[in-house]
Amino acid sequence: MSYRAPVDDILYTLRHVAGLDRLEADGLAPELADGMADAVLREAGRFATERVAPLNRIGDKVGSVLKDGRVTTPPGWRDSYRDWAEAGWNGLASPPEHGGQGLPNLIQSACIEMWNSASMAFSLGPLLTAGAVEALASHGSDELKRLYLPRLVSGEWMGTMNLTEPQAGSDLAALRARAERAGDGSYRIFGQKIFITYGEHDMADNIVHLVLARLPDAPPGTRGISLFVVPKVLVNPDGTLGAPNDVRCAGVEHKLGIHASPTCTMMFGDAGGAVGYLVGEENRGLACMFTMMNNARLGVGLQGVAIAERAFQQALDYAGQRRQGRAPGAAGEGMSPIIDHADVRRMLMWMRAQTGAARAICYLTAEALDRARRAPTPEARREAADRAALLTPVAKAYSTDIGVEVASLGVQVHGGMGYIEETGAAQHLRDARIAAIYEGTNGIQAIDLVTRKLPLADGATVRAAIAVMRETVNALAARNTPGFGQAAARLGEAVDALDRATAWMLAAATDGRQTEALAGATPYLRLFGVGQGGVSLAKEAMAALDDSGQSEQGRTARVATARFFAEQIATEAPGLERAVVDGAGAVADAARVFAS
Amino acid sequence: MSYRAPVDDILYTLRHVAGLDRLEADGLAPELADGMADAVLREAGRFATERVAPLNRIGDKVGSVLKDGRVTTPPGWRDSYRDWAEAGWNGLASPPEHGGQGLPNLIQSACIEMWNSASMAFSLGPLLTAGAVEALASHGSDELKRLYLPRLVSGEWMGTMNLTEPQAGSDLAALRARAERAGDGSYRIFGQKIFITYGEHDMADNIVHLVLARLPDAPPGTRGISLFVVPKVLVNPDGTLGAPNDVRCAGVEHKLGIHASPTCTMMFGDAGGAVGYLVGEENRGLACMFTMMNNARLGVGLQGVAIAERAFQQALDYAGQRRQGRAPGAAGEGMSPIIDHADVRRMLMWMRAQTGAARAICYLTAEALDRARRAPTPEARREAADRAALLTPVAKAYSTDIGVEVASLGVQVHGGMGYIEETGAAQHLRDARIAAIYEGTNGIQAIDLVTRKLPLADGATVRAAIAVMRETVNALAARNTPGFGQAAARLGEAVDALDRATAWMLAAATDGRQTEALAGATPYLRLFGVGQGGVSLAKEAMAALDDSGQSEQGRTARVATARFFAEQIATEAPGLERAVVDGAGAVADAARVFAS
Repeated sequence: MSYRAPVDDILYTLRHVAGLDRLEADGLAPELADGMADAVLREAGRFATERVAPLNRIGDKVGSVLKDGRVTTPPGWRDSYRDWAEAGWNGLASPPEHGGQGLPNLIQSACIEMWNSASMAFSLGPLLTAGAVEALASHGSDELKRLYLPRLVSGEWMGTMNLTEPQAGSDLAALRARAERAGDGSYRIFGQKIFITYGEHDMADNIVHLVLARLPDAPPGTRGISLFVVPKVLVNPDGTLGAPNDVRCAGVEHKLGIHASPTCTMMFGDAGGAVGYLVGEENRGLACMFTMMNNARLGVGLQGVAIAERAFQQALDYAGQRRQGRAPGAAGEGMSPIIDHADVRRMLMWMRAQTGAARAICYLTAEALDRARRAPTPEARREAADRAALLTPVAKAYSTDIGVEVASLGVQVHGGMGYIEETGAAQHLRDARIAAIYEGTNGIQAIDLVTRKLPLADGATVRAAIAVMRETVNALAARNTPGFGQAAARLGEAVDALDRATAWMLAAATDGRQTEALAGATPYLRLFGVGQGGVSLAKEAMAALDDSGQSEQGRTARVATARFFAEQIATEAPGLERAVVDGAGAVADAARVFAS
Repeated sequence: MSYRAPVDDILYTLRHVAGLDRLEADGLAPELADGMADAVLREAGRFATERVAPLNRIGDKVGSVLKDGRVTTPPGWRDSYRDWAEAGWNGLASPPEHGGQGLPNLIQSACIEMWNSASMAFSLGPLLTAGAVEALASHGSDELKRLYLPRLVSGEWMGTMNLTEPQAGSDLAALRARAERAGDGSYRIFGQKIFITYGEHDMADNIVHLVLARLPDAPPGTRGISLFVVPKVLVNPDGTLGAPNDVRCAGVEHKLGIHASPTCTMMFGDAGGAVGYLVGEENRGLACMFTMMNNARLGVGLQGVAIAERAFQQALDYAGQRRQGRAPGAAGEGMSPIIDHADVRRMLMWMRAQTGAARAICYLTAEALDRARRAPTPEARREAADRAALLTPVAKAYSTDIGVEVASLGVQVHGGMGYIEETGAAQHLRDARIAAIYEGTNGIQAIDLVTRKLPLADGATVRAAIAVMRETVNALAARNTPGFGQAAARLGEAVDALDRATAWMLAAATDGRQTEALAGATPYLRLFGVGQGGVSLAKEAMAALDDSGQSEQGRTARVATARFFAEQIATEAPGLERAVVDGAGAVADAARVFAS
């Protein structure tokens, strides 16, 4: 089965959970007047469904292939990418002064979800290009902006992020790539980078590498890293393409999934030095890179949502068609569709509920990013920026864990057919697996959450987030609608658990129990996601009940999904809290277990 | 990294948790006199480590290939299999009257774990051969036993299980393959079977297919299914090989994992009818097949343990070598091995604890099977048989879920390297994924547990199992050893939760709330596994503390592992109980969610 973009569901979450309606009402999204949000998402959904989704299977089967230093993408990919870029999708949220459309991050995020559901390997290239645009727009010189941004925004050129080296993955302090001043204001770059996504390919006329390297006199560690633009083909002062740069692709990895996305080993400066141009200041490259990475983290979280949505659609479709056994109380003759069996229903509801929860968390993050730029006062912008910072690691890690878990359940719903590659369910699991690793492993996200994000504004940011969750729980309890079952009680317990675990974490961070906090970081992040996700689904369900424009089926589905999450998933919360607050001893013991 | 068979750990669990010591002390395993258990396991461990493990990667890369109706296994596989069979490993637990060694299932299970850690795809063939031996030994005529068993036991021939057809997977009532009486006592078999593991290959001189089919006058449904032996090559009355039978392999599936294990579409009777011989009585084939399947289910559970152990070893090895960042409080200069980071420790401890728990559950099941055959009184045999029946679905489903989850974490520990196929971590995840599906999906196992196993002996079997768990918890609480942290309290809560959920399930089964019981089946099985697994680790740790022969490191590791499971995993139990007893409404709502 192919993918059908769930535009209506996405719009509902955008409006009623993630605050698109309020953004518009507050006058912070004038570009979206006259139904622009709906129009853009419907058109994106159509393109994703009709043009991108058909690329996914051949991309997996054929993959991108390196020969004589050049990478060829799978049949149809180049043309589809060019059509996609020509339709203007690449610059959706880019600054209008560089040719973009300047739409809110919320709209961009919804599109990113759809592109990635259609084909994660395809959509990864534009995700990196967006990061390059962001870094250049924020930190590049006027000349760099003039020469590079228009074509990166249009998608004629694509961007990459060159951080990783064999000895330097999560730990960028260990970077060794070198940069030398050339005397003319430019630099020469030398070194090897690995795991470079879309490092070399045939989809765009030029590839703009953003490369971290050290100057000869740079201090050691992360304070001695600079960021450079290193184009595959040199750009003349008039913007035309010149000679090839001293950059080459030395290998393409054989990966578990996203086969069509070329993961390259890149060699810079083998033949005398690759020409590079400084972005921002010398030795301040990491700050520039974080600009790219924060956005990319939300993008990767959306990949988790996207692959979960696609896996869910495929499993739901199969479960409605495949017949085996007879469900208790089945009417008529013959075998029942497996969707009528309680255990299959449980799996599908789990997939649906977790996908919806992760989607809500990602869109809430996008909305915070929009307010951080668009809110009228510095205080409001600062508050929103902190909220975005808090939510970003949760959006990345919770959603990508869910992506893997939902894709794995999708295989399970298919039974033996799920294990056969032709079915396509297994590809989703293979593709999904990388999202929990790249752009900062999910363990790194959890550490970021507890060590850097919880202390924001002395803990006020996270306390405010929990207070908002509690408002929704209280509204749900006050409403007392029978269809919600025990949802209010279970969500209340989940938010209480999150509240106590948060207080414990804040205390641990301030009184020197850093190792204890780190030991509980992963279950804490999961607990945060469970609380935020469950509350968001409840909020959406209540909005549907109050919305006269919503169909009976739409209401029922939203209430049941919120109930399922609360009664079947949020029930994990007290156990997660225990794992957080009691975890340090058991984890510390590991030092002795593995001592031999 | 390759695999090192953890013979000492396995023996420890066999003796101190699974009751091998008691089996010997009770005089029920005379074959194991003079240190036979140790000797067999050490030799098996050596063969697994040195001869089988090196086959795993090439098996994945090259796979088994179909050409002109014949399947070729990867380079080295045929010779290694023959050496393995010649060393006598195939008949380890088979009846001595047919050339086997008649060793206890416990010893066989430990070997199965090691073969599968070394290479799951390799070990799957012998697992199916063992099922064929079991079915023939239990239900075959003397003539069938005489002609087939010696060579199946020796491993010269291999066996298969032919159940599945396109329309009949979990639901065998839908079987269509036909059998006709030939008039000479033999039968002619017609039909297509799919997903036939090792249906065709070059490793053995003959392949003995056990095939389910319907006679023309058979009643519909599962009461009209008969079991037949259908050899690839006909066997002359003197036991020599004769003409080829009318059986052919029409296709080999392209699967997510276990690439070297050929998954075949088999065509029977295309050229006039495949010659088959009845096993047991006409129309009673399903009972015979269940003999095979119950054993196979434990075998598949052991595959889950096996792949978890292998993935854990590889991740542990990598984490000790790979250096990134500095752990808080690290001594000396430079980057720390990632194993010193709390979050990596947590992942490794989770892998170790869950692997040990699943292992204990599988070995407990094997011991119950041994007692079911060897205990001195019919009452004791019946009690043990019921215990084995209760534990089998838990052993299968819990362990294979753990196999997938541990293998997935193994990828995560490797970071970006885990996603590269050459590393080998991804193969474990791909291989592991099938075990949760075949031999009855894990959803089917959960249904089996709550609908057929809990009611055994009017609930006395499960109540006795829980009472034994409680004894261990009480012993742990009484001991009050500081190293266990809160383990006694957490395990006590887990067993309480299991106890209450069991009472709810037993009540639901008897008062007609079948759909509600089915809705909670999967979390109930997980809850059972968490309780049984956590208690088993605690039992092993207490045994180590009381064992003067145990090293300090061995004691520390076992106590810490039991503590980690109790404090970090058993904490899930109360939430699982809630999901069981409150689950029906939320799952039933799914009918309306997916109604459109």
